[in-house]
Amino acid sequence: MKVFAGNSNRQLAEAICNYLNVPLGKASVRRFADQEIFVEIQENVRGEDVFLVQPTSYPANDHLMELLIMIDAMRRSSARRITAVLPYFGYARQDRRASGRTPISAKLVSNLITEAGADRVMTLDLHAGQIQGFFDIPTDNLYALPVLTRDIKSHYDLSNVMVVSPDVGGVVRARALAKRLDCLLSIVDKRRDRPGESEVMNIIGDVTGKDCLLIDDIVDSGGTLCNAADALLAQGASSVTAYITHGVLSGGAVTRVTSSKLRELVITDSIQPTTAVQSAHNIRVVTTAPLIGEAITRTSQEESVSSLFD
Amino acid sequence: MKVFAGNSNRQLAEAICNYLNVPLGKASVRRFADQEIFVEIQENVRGEDVFLVQPTSYPANDHLMELLIMIDAMRRSSARRITAVLPYFGYARQDRRASGRTPISAKLVSNLITEAGADRVMTLDLHAGQIQGFFDIPTDNLYALPVLTRDIKSHYDLSNVMVVSPDVGGVVRARALAKRLDCLLSIVDKRRDRPGESEVMNIIGDVTGKDCLLIDDIVDSGGTLCNAADALLAQGASSVTAYITHGVLSGGAVTRVTSSKLRELVITDSIQPTTAVQSAHNIRVVTTAPLIGEAITRTSQEESVSSLFD
Ligand SMILES: Nc1ncnc2c1ncn2[C@@H]1O[C@H](COP(=O)(O)O)[C@@H](O)[C@H]1O
Ligand SMILES: Nc1ncnc2c1ncn2[C@@H]1O[C@H](COP(=O)(O)O)[C@@H](O)[C@H]1O
Repeated sequence: MKVFAGNSNRQLAEAICNYLNVPLGKASVRRFADQEIFVEIQENVRGEDVFLVQPTSYPANDHLMELLIMIDAMRRSSARRITAVLPYFGYARQDRRASGRTPISAKLVSNLITEAGADRVMTLDLHAGQIQGFFDIPTDNLYALPVLTRDIKSHYDLSNVMVVSPDVGGVVRARALAKRLDCLLSIVDKRRDRPGESEVMNIIGDVTGKDCLLIDDIVDSGGTLCNAADALLAQGASSVTAYITHGVLSGGAVTRVTSSKLRELVITDSIQPTTAVQSAHNIRVVTTAPLIGEAITRTSQEESVSSLFD
Repeated sequence: MKVFAGNSNRQLAEAICNYLNVPLGKASVRRFADQEIFVEIQENVRGEDVFLVQPTSYPANDHLMELLIMIDAMRRSSARRITAVLPYFGYARQDRRASGRTPISAKLVSNLITEAGADRVMTLDLHAGQIQGFFDIPTDNLYALPVLTRDIKSHYDLSNVMVVSPDVGGVVRARALAKRLDCLLSIVDKRRDRPGESEVMNIIGDVTGKDCLLIDDIVDSGGTLCNAADALLAQGASSVTAYITHGVLSGGAVTRVTSSKLRELVITDSIQPTTAVQSAHNIRVVTTAPLIGEAITRTSQEESVSSLFD
């Protein structure tokens, strides 16, 4: 078994290799003068079980092309099996046609990964489970839940915790955590009565005096999160922390979070943290390297990964 | 028949539509906050013969993804036939395995275009004709030669012209032009005797007193071109002009050309000229819009495009 990485999250790839006690595979993934990607695999992979760690985070198109070109190079170098490991799956939010003449880019990306020659795909907290159905090759979608749960247990008195879904769409995900922690669940119900009017935050459940934990899969602009924190505190919550798997954090998101009333935003390393994220006083990154490392071990030994979630 | 464009060369797409006397199809090709591409086709394309004009020039990965996502959106909107028009075909130079464990990215890109759902592909002066064989769908590779020939005839006294291939690899292309113009041909033979030693320019043919026309398909860094111009002038050429189809012009290429001894660099609009190119005193852009427009007309009428090259 060999693990390789493109340029999107070498830190995570190194941490996974550390967990597995193997060296990171040697590959050069560079640019020509015109910025086209050039890949050269610098060690023998003939007959090997190869794992390519490459979340397709910002810049998604470049990181996706790096992945596809690496898959092509691996296949032409006679790797026995190629598993594309995408802890963050770019374009996942375009998983259905929102309106008339639009693409389903998540399906397109799935097809491109297969077409390039991947034999398997490993993901983490996919935005929609349905995306697994976009592939005809085997997929494993890992859950960050056990990693987040462990962190919550070591930081909070569970008897005073309230799990909160930041919108109605995320209720299933939040409920899974609430059940696991044996905590109460409440929901922020955003409503905009007329277009142009500002959103009203309706909180379903009594959060008075509670340590609220906002749960979601993606934090992008951070706007929803910061507004939800304000609304929860206004309703008497004693603190608000957010546990979110994927820290996309576009535009001014980091500033928005650092100047918000959030006690803490806890994200995973599915996306490599920028220096701004690393130096933010109220953002903390927990690693998924042991989880992914263990899943890689089991996959390469043809064992089930499902017990990782117990 | 309908013509649409991504963001890589709207100028050319508009010019093609002008030639065809049709409006450019309405489509929104934008970015989300995290820079993922979002496409919305804003007019009915059901049953239509659709042409997507989108050279995959710098930034190649973004322009390729725009093309693929547009194809996906068109297919899902029931377009009858989708022709991807790539006047410049990015990644074409990675058309074979240069060394051991490397990809063949031009083949990968060909597969991705087919997988997204293109029914036909139209290209211009492909770096290697073999790339047509990478597709299993119909392809038409147009030649810029007639466009360049017309320009040369209106600017030069053909009796004093010498066509020059800037390297041995380009001799076939240069010979086609020399034959068409009924001119003499010479060749710059670059040699590097030992690695690390500087290149020696050996000129095959007598260029004394000639107006030399350097012919190639791609000008990237411009280094080869400017060196060849120096060598030709040192051998007594009276002027040196370069006619090159695709103006990639990476890095400091424009400055290199403007401060060189080239009388002129003539390129086509297969790649949308930057403002630096537009304001360069010795770079001139000739349009391929009528050529591509005519090829689109013939394709949509199920006629052959080959007579365009007579
Ligand atoms: N990269 C993106 N950034 C922001 N919104 C997106 C992105 N991709 C898709 N969307 C939109 O997000 C919505 C889907 O989000 P959700 O309901 O959470 O699955 C759809 O309306 C999409 O058009
Ligand atoms: N985008 C690029 N920029 C510069 N060189 C490239 C690029 N793509 C491929 N190449 C290299 O160019 C060579 C092929 O050029 P050619 O011999 O003209 O077909 C190969 O050695 C490639 O590795």
